[in-house]
Amino acid sequence: MVHNKAKEVTFYHAGCPVCISAENSVLSLIDPAVKVTIVHLGKEKEKIADARKAGIKSVPALLLGQEVLHINFGASLDDIK
Amino acid sequence: MVHNKAKEVTFYHAGCPVCISAENSVLSLIDPAVKVTIVHLGKEKEKIADARKAGIKSVPALLLGQEVLHINFGASLDDIK
Repeated sequence: MVHNKAKEVTFYHAGCPVCISAENSVLSLIDPAVKVTIVHLGKEKEKIADARKAGIKSVPALLLGQEVLHINFGASLDDIK
Repeated sequence: MVHNKAKEVTFYHAGCPVCISAENSVLSLIDPAVKVTIVHLGKEKEKIADARKAGIKSVPALLLGQEVLHINFGASLDDIK
């Protein structure tokens, strides 16, 4: 029996080496049943404001509903802006 | 086709609120095919040295082979010791 499965997550990154390495690892682990959206904040700068509102402070980060998992540290959101 | 799937990971934590929250989220996301070992460094202090050798600097953290994903920040390994 599986409880409380997250069905949708967003992985935020900015193309940095730490981001890419984390992306590969995270994607290799995530349940195939989970829908993963990948947002490259360096290329999609219009999404930085939303990411900030969601509580993202640095990338790479994974957003699950309202919870943010900051994974290692690649770059601060301020440095992308 | 699935490439490069991690088959085994270790989740290190120390029972802190940040750890427990991250544990719930991470476990809800991980592919059921991946074997997850959970190590509570507060209770299994003999494993702190190994964790340090593997590159763990703080908990919660996920170890995949030789790669460490530090997830948010609950406590430094030094604070557990």
